[in-house]
Amino acid sequence: MDDWYRFDGAETLDTPALLFYKERIAANIAAALRMVREPALLRPHVKTHKCADIVRMMTAAGISKFKCATIAEAEMLGAAGAPDVLLAYQPAGSKALRLLTLVRRFPDVRFSCLVDDTETAAALDAHCAAAGVTLDVWLDLNVGQNRTGVVPHRAPALAAAVQSCRSLRLAGLHAYDGHITTADPVECRRQVDDAFAPVFALRKELDGIAVIAGGSPTFPCHAGRGDVECSPGTFALWDGSYQRTYPDQPFVPAALLMTSVVSVVNTSLFCTDLGHKSVASEGPIPRLRFVNAPEAMQSGHSEEHMVVTVPDASKYRIGDRLYAMPNHICPSVSMYERAAVVSGGRLAGEWPITARDKRLTV
Amino acid sequence: MDDWYRFDGAETLDTPALLFYKERIAANIAAALRMVREPALLRPHVKTHKCADIVRMMTAAGISKFKCATIAEAEMLGAAGAPDVLLAYQPAGSKALRLLTLVRRFPDVRFSCLVDDTETAAALDAHCAAAGVTLDVWLDLNVGQNRTGVVPHRAPALAAAVQSCRSLRLAGLHAYDGHITTADPVECRRQVDDAFAPVFALRKELDGIAVIAGGSPTFPCHAGRGDVECSPGTFALWDGSYQRTYPDQPFVPAALLMTSVVSVVNTSLFCTDLGHKSVASEGPIPRLRFVNAPEAMQSGHSEEHMVVTVPDASKYRIGDRLYAMPNHICPSVSMYERAAVVSGGRLAGEWPITARDKRLTV
Repeated sequence: MDDWYRFDGAETLDTPALLFYKERIAANIAAALRMVREPALLRPHVKTHKCADIVRMMTAAGISKFKCATIAEAEMLGAAGAPDVLLAYQPAGSKALRLLTLVRRFPDVRFSCLVDDTETAAALDAHCAAAGVTLDVWLDLNVGQNRTGVVPHRAPALAAAVQSCRSLRLAGLHAYDGHITTADPVECRRQVDDAFAPVFALRKELDGIAVIAGGSPTFPCHAGRGDVECSPGTFALWDGSYQRTYPDQPFVPAALLMTSVVSVVNTSLFCTDLGHKSVASEGPIPRLRFVNAPEAMQSGHSEEHMVVTVPDASKYRIGDRLYAMPNHICPSVSMYERAAVVSGGRLAGEWPITARDKRLTV
Repeated sequence: MDDWYRFDGAETLDTPALLFYKERIAANIAAALRMVREPALLRPHVKTHKCADIVRMMTAAGISKFKCATIAEAEMLGAAGAPDVLLAYQPAGSKALRLLTLVRRFPDVRFSCLVDDTETAAALDAHCAAAGVTLDVWLDLNVGQNRTGVVPHRAPALAAAVQSCRSLRLAGLHAYDGHITTADPVECRRQVDDAFAPVFALRKELDGIAVIAGGSPTFPCHAGRGDVECSPGTFALWDGSYQRTYPDQPFVPAALLMTSVVSVVNTSLFCTDLGHKSVASEGPIPRLRFVNAPEAMQSGHSEEHMVVTVPDASKYRIGDRLYAMPNHICPSVSMYERAAVVSGGRLAGEWPITARDKRLTV
């Protein structure tokens, strides 16, 4: 029986609990490094785990470049010894000031950020000049996701604007292709090549500048190129949705949620303590699968309760533990202030979800 | 112009930020007390705010009884000076042990909890006996929500089982009617009376024992009874969904989320920093309304980004601040480690969201 998720010491934890399986995380890091062949082409996004201990596992494995979405994540990376930190966000106003505080606090870290707008670039330049620092910036390109970024044909003007800024340095191009979610490798490659054709044209125009491309779904497409940095995030922990959608990717689930039965409602329903304050809830029900109870199906969700349908609820007792693989691990992790770490089949301490808070010290 | 939400000092905050409007919270507490007429009949649920400072506002207003869903919330209440704390959860295993630790740590607090199962009651009794404490328990009744609780006709046997426990004391009956969501007061009353008929019959049978009834939607129905404790939670902060659905309830929105424009995508789209890690996402899009931009409509959502559709995006600049009223405030609050407090039209400090963590000290 494949009960990889069981471990000694589980009963000492209260639920709901976030579990990190250390050897599986290590295996995922190794698999990602094999896919890019060269560590310098892997820039993992830390939003999935927000955990300094995992950052340290990654740096120990040879990864030096990281991507993040919040100032707190950038601070966590600096404090954990990451040499190169991209804030994949366009910082204006208060965020620009916070970023510059980090730049000064961690002088040995290469911080960089995105811009997609000339006015914002000019304001950032002024902040940098006032702070006496030079900042690397990446042009954020909209390749079809329509979330942030400048469309590629407007990028040359933006590049020129950045290059005219005294305190900004053009580091490269950044394009996130979150709209491409096909599971078929050939179709994925076709869509990605279409979306990135203008990016690579622009790179040529800008003297072969660096490119950061994609997230988890398109990671295999970009990993083979050999001339772009890849920035998947979910691979470190993997999750139910990616496992089902991308079975060809070499990653294994390395995080679960442990929950307890809190009530047996009737002959076909029981209730667990995995409410929507404890598991990502932006998607439809069911939001997870129970690895040790495959017949159990989520049928209701409230803040601290999850109602589950089973063929025979009399088999379940109050206090029974279930292991859940969430569809989406990233926003599930950020609901926990710590993860219980499983290593060698036993409970091996806990790691803080360092950057779940929106403000650490800066 | 009704710009109650604006305040001096907003620009000093980074976004996304949770805002608590102190005078509005005070007004909501006063309105709830007026509805029950007697403070002893109000037992607010703290899951909405998880905030010790709001607990202290409530105790200062004369409220002595509280309801909560997690051990961390129970600990927060004990530490904040709440005299009477109901854990509205059936504690088994690790949760029972944690609750008993609190019982011993705060000897002046009357802690109580729910049970809906004889085996669990017996186990709890054994834990209490071993700890040398007597615990008040409420029978959790399932009046149609089918989430937790025993159906009323099985409650007499459960009551007898509790009464035979040496270290448990039967405190009363608890019934949550979250399945009744009609906005029509007459229809609400009819449905509530139907659902609670067996509860009141059981109360008679059990010598007029105490009853805790309902949540926010049915609060007006139960508040008029004069002989049940009401346990609404959302009233303290109120939110967009309840404001639209229950316009007759006398509460005002007292919490907002402040967000910034981070990118202008095209002529009809812009992007803000209010991702689904920063606003409750268990419901459909749109998950909020912008009080200072009523024409803006959420059209996309990812972890740290919210894409918004407007008639003319050229009116928006990167860095512009928007004030959002989430549909559901409770799971939005728990995404923030602190709230910025607005009082007298200005920023007046910050309050920790004390019990957002799942474990404080116990």
